[in-house]
Amino acid sequence: MQRQRLKGVLAPVVTPFKRDLSVDAERFVGHCKWLLDHGCSGLAIFGTNSEANSLSVDERIELLERLLAAGVAPSRLMPGTGCCALPDSVKLTAHAVNSGCAGVLMLPPFYYKGVSDEGLFRAFAEVVERVGDRRLALYLYHIPPVAQVPISLGLIARLLKAYPESIAGIKDSSGDWNNTKAVLDNFAAGGFDVFAGSEVFLLDNMRGGGVGCITATGNVNPGPIDHVFRNWQSAQADALQGEITATRKVVQAVPMIPALKEIIARYGEDAGFATVRPPLAALTEEERTKLFAGLRTREFAMPGLAGALQGAAALSA
Amino acid sequence: MQRQRLKGVLAPVVTPFKRDLSVDAERFVGHCKWLLDHGCSGLAIFGTNSEANSLSVDERIELLERLLAAGVAPSRLMPGTGCCALPDSVKLTAHAVNSGCAGVLMLPPFYYKGVSDEGLFRAFAEVVERVGDRRLALYLYHIPPVAQVPISLGLIARLLKAYPESIAGIKDSSGDWNNTKAVLDNFAAGGFDVFAGSEVFLLDNMRGGGVGCITATGNVNPGPIDHVFRNWQSAQADALQGEITATRKVVQAVPMIPALKEIIARYGEDAGFATVRPPLAALTEEERTKLFAGLRTREFAMPGLAGALQGAAALSA
Repeated sequence: MQRQRLKGVLAPVVTPFKRDLSVDAERFVGHCKWLLDHGCSGLAIFGTNSEANSLSVDERIELLERLLAAGVAPSRLMPGTGCCALPDSVKLTAHAVNSGCAGVLMLPPFYYKGVSDEGLFRAFAEVVERVGDRRLALYLYHIPPVAQVPISLGLIARLLKAYPESIAGIKDSSGDWNNTKAVLDNFAAGGFDVFAGSEVFLLDNMRGGGVGCITATGNVNPGPIDHVFRNWQSAQADALQGEITATRKVVQAVPMIPALKEIIARYGEDAGFATVRPPLAALTEEERTKLFAGLRTREFAMPGLAGALQGAAALSA
Repeated sequence: MQRQRLKGVLAPVVTPFKRDLSVDAERFVGHCKWLLDHGCSGLAIFGTNSEANSLSVDERIELLERLLAAGVAPSRLMPGTGCCALPDSVKLTAHAVNSGCAGVLMLPPFYYKGVSDEGLFRAFAEVVERVGDRRLALYLYHIPPVAQVPISLGLIARLLKAYPESIAGIKDSSGDWNNTKAVLDNFAAGGFDVFAGSEVFLLDNMRGGGVGCITATGNVNPGPIDHVFRNWQSAQADALQGEITATRKVVQAVPMIPALKEIIARYGEDAGFATVRPPLAALTEEERTKLFAGLRTREFAMPGLAGALQGAAALSA
């Protein structure tokens, strides 16, 4: 039996690294707790913005265990578990389910391009069958701009038919509202939970029958985004949406992942948070200047973050 | 100090799977030995055609050890070791070097698209530095149609400057002769070994200063391809090249990886060899018919393969 479904605003939590590029579990826990206290209903750890594909399977397993040991409830977690290699996806998914996580967010295998829906169906089906656990709530991760391997409407329909109890929903990071609308129109009424992949589409997604968003900017602006989620039926909804969209545009005007980490480092008063693993690179000075100038025009703030990270930085130093 | 450099025809060896999709080491060893006896000077195991990114790190390590234990010389091996995650690339590369492999063929981290040369430089540099072994001969793997992350001329130059003893060459699978030519013109004279990524470009590559090819079709047609390599300066070279190009075109007219496995299964009289891991899928009946009809027009043969695989199939049954 599946656990209660996640709704609302989820952050694909960025993964902090120490100077030697090893995973910094202390800072990660500090940031996760701040997110849950400031608007995130859940955490989509190990997503694209988490540099999850730059982590080994063992690093992901250990970091999830550190998070749980620090007292974060697994009912708030939707870890990313989709890898190129079937044994890796099975191992991570089984570990998440056995840890009690609310769900998993699964990329298709993304090395081979132009693969058939038959091959992708088999890829997801093998994971469901091999994990073989009725607690599994699998969210499909559609992000063609990065993975370059799309999840088609036909594939969703086939997976839902084969595994109605396990296929729980989707994160649509296509950036194409027409696709999100088609997914909503075809599947939302049947209990398939649609998360927009950016808060830019949050209000449209809620009006279309979706359940929230899983968004990069949730890492730094969770309160205002959650405010839109909670008030999407109010008279102020469009104005509130306009505000979070404007902030998003400032952040996505520069490379997103280093930008998110620089924002947390700056507003959390913790310079060590900014490190990225290759192949990502730090922002240039020009990008940094543009980013923070933009945020000042938005009167951007991250209340309480410095306090939340202070202890963590000291522990990991 | 590096070992003797590989030259000639290398096959990116396909990886056989048992019915339960586990790796079939027995069949793999049988096929590898046949390749080395029939025209391949080396084996680029764990390449794109090997479904290597569909294998876990542990599966790759174990399979390499099985191959070495079966008596295949590491001086003939150039395993693929480039993964999305730095710790995985370091682990596989160190294992290959410590096993005495002649070189490693390294994909760039391929999840994130549009990354900077700075980020890619750091990705390769971290592997070289962390492996920290002068025996390392690193071949860059440029395959933009699949990885979608190219290796630019500028990146090659920067890596050669920083690590002249470790950066040994490239496999160019761009399918773009102009790119291969530019790589040859810029770097071949300095001892940077250029392998064409398809035998279609073998003769041009040799005439331009290259050292051979690492080609999918090396799995099934190694003898004739090696014959072009050995006779590239002869009067018959263009005619010989025309023959292997014609055979290549038959194979690449259908999805290559399942096609290679079906050819080995058919000509090796070992039906179990055809299995692929998802997200790949078996050929359709139509594709299969087209493939084998085409091969018959080429008077295609794989002498001795059935014998080489017979014992292996029995052991793995």
